[in-house]
Amino acid sequence: MAVYTEVPDEELAAFMARYPLGDVRSIKGIAEGVENSNYLLATDTGQYILTLYEKRVAEADLPFFLGLMDHLAAGGISCPLPVHDRDDNALNRLAGRPAAIVTWLEGVWVRRPTAEHCRAVGEALAAMHLAGGDYTVRRANSLGIAGWRPLFEGSREGADSVRAGLASDIGHELDALEAAWPRDLPAGVIHADLFPDNVFFLRGELSGLIDFYFACNDTFAYDLGICLNAWCFEGDGAFNVTKSRALIRGYRSVRPLSEAELTSLPILARGSALRFLLTRLHDWLRVPEGALVVPKDPLEFYQKMCFHRSADEPSAYGIDP
Amino acid sequence: MAVYTEVPDEELAAFMARYPLGDVRSIKGIAEGVENSNYLLATDTGQYILTLYEKRVAEADLPFFLGLMDHLAAGGISCPLPVHDRDDNALNRLAGRPAAIVTWLEGVWVRRPTAEHCRAVGEALAAMHLAGGDYTVRRANSLGIAGWRPLFEGSREGADSVRAGLASDIGHELDALEAAWPRDLPAGVIHADLFPDNVFFLRGELSGLIDFYFACNDTFAYDLGICLNAWCFEGDGAFNVTKSRALIRGYRSVRPLSEAELTSLPILARGSALRFLLTRLHDWLRVPEGALVVPKDPLEFYQKMCFHRSADEPSAYGIDP
Repeated sequence: MAVYTEVPDEELAAFMARYPLGDVRSIKGIAEGVENSNYLLATDTGQYILTLYEKRVAEADLPFFLGLMDHLAAGGISCPLPVHDRDDNALNRLAGRPAAIVTWLEGVWVRRPTAEHCRAVGEALAAMHLAGGDYTVRRANSLGIAGWRPLFEGSREGADSVRAGLASDIGHELDALEAAWPRDLPAGVIHADLFPDNVFFLRGELSGLIDFYFACNDTFAYDLGICLNAWCFEGDGAFNVTKSRALIRGYRSVRPLSEAELTSLPILARGSALRFLLTRLHDWLRVPEGALVVPKDPLEFYQKMCFHRSADEPSAYGIDP
Repeated sequence: MAVYTEVPDEELAAFMARYPLGDVRSIKGIAEGVENSNYLLATDTGQYILTLYEKRVAEADLPFFLGLMDHLAAGGISCPLPVHDRDDNALNRLAGRPAAIVTWLEGVWVRRPTAEHCRAVGEALAAMHLAGGDYTVRRANSLGIAGWRPLFEGSREGADSVRAGLASDIGHELDALEAAWPRDLPAGVIHADLFPDNVFFLRGELSGLIDFYFACNDTFAYDLGICLNAWCFEGDGAFNVTKSRALIRGYRSVRPLSEAELTSLPILARGSALRFLLTRLHDWLRVPEGALVVPKDPLEFYQKMCFHRSADEPSAYGIDP
């Protein structure tokens, strides 16, 4: 939840005059998303999301993200479509921040996903991987395996304050993952953050994907590993193999997985758990004074990582032989 | 900014089934309003605001507030209209909290009001006072003059930590106001919190009033005094007499003010400044651990109070003789 930047009346009017969207009928800050300031914007022509990009998003990456949404939408993926201004710019500035308007997507994110939701997410993830295939702009994954050790170095000292022995455990985990990480699997544009709050459903059907601000070029099956962590654990920490079977089946029904991808899935899921453990640990140890956002518990992903470490056979994920 | 209560999928579905509004197409927490959890709700039939009433609002008062919105809307005031369920209840429960759905009001609140906005607010305030005239439910003003001394007692000890001498100054102010407070002025239902964020404008015209959760029975001219504090001071603390003249003229064009009301306006505005000083001081001294909301500066209203204390002639407000 966060609205960081307040938009003065006159600046909004000048900004909106660039777009062919008519007059503003309503603008309300949305209490979702912790990275940027998001406003629900109603105008004469419809409803939109106005995003002011806060400092955590690198300005140089914005053309990649906005171009990707254009590209995926053109490829049949239901996602927010950036609105271009009269000079064909999708990106402008407002209240001192980079800002963009995207179309409004109907749907509700599911607080307690079922196996059927997981199947639909698997399908949508595979469709996104295929649709991104011919997107020519590239963005390295700054939170991929090459980024984990530097990220860890910044948190090593405080890690044991969160859990005794955590620093040493993560150190060994990094050694093991770097040694065993698969390097030649099919790759392309991945979402990299497809958690339940980034997937909308409408009347039981998946209605769209949002929040492409972690999207990058990386291994497709790693993105699937992220979804296993995001969708297939219960609130009590138990792994639900029915959900993971449904998610993987859904994915394979749209984009087949090679033998190498299937065999690698456990280590990719394990690495993905470490990635979220590391970013959460980083945030946990650096809560700013007067913070509006309570950081998420890093140990949730420590437990997920331990699950993948112990269950590193494809069968543990319900993968059909 | 605040969304306190998270609504589980199944509970929302059961709640919505009570209302003739069709399926939910979207639900988003709104980062505005600090008292309650507000969601923007889109369904097959339109857009609504879903409010979960948090602890700060007394549950026993909710029928007064919701009935008032019904009453004012029927009297031609543009305000959110409570949606009644199939059993004609405007108030239900959701996620363990009292909850209501009201209609969506188009418009944008003005960050920097002009004299023309002030005139429109004066008109709307007077129209609301007239329309509330035959509302038979009553609610005492718990934040009226009788409530100020008890409120102050809870903050007296900490007051000097905010500004040296503040406790003694407020004590003298209370004595003076209690002695001079006018008791026989025309009274009825007042809004009691008509700040700029509670007034929507659309294409330069006032499109509606929201947030009736401080409404109560009290002196009409006191409500006008609140608006002088809410609308007529500049960001640097200066009082803008052009705006107050416009606000009071707008009011009088709809509901005439008696000589006694005009003469009392300075002391009513002074009391209203003290009311907001006291509630802000209360909140300032009690910021909960891990608070999501940064409290507003109480000294803003100390300065406003000082203005009214020094300028206690009607002419200082631009009141026409």
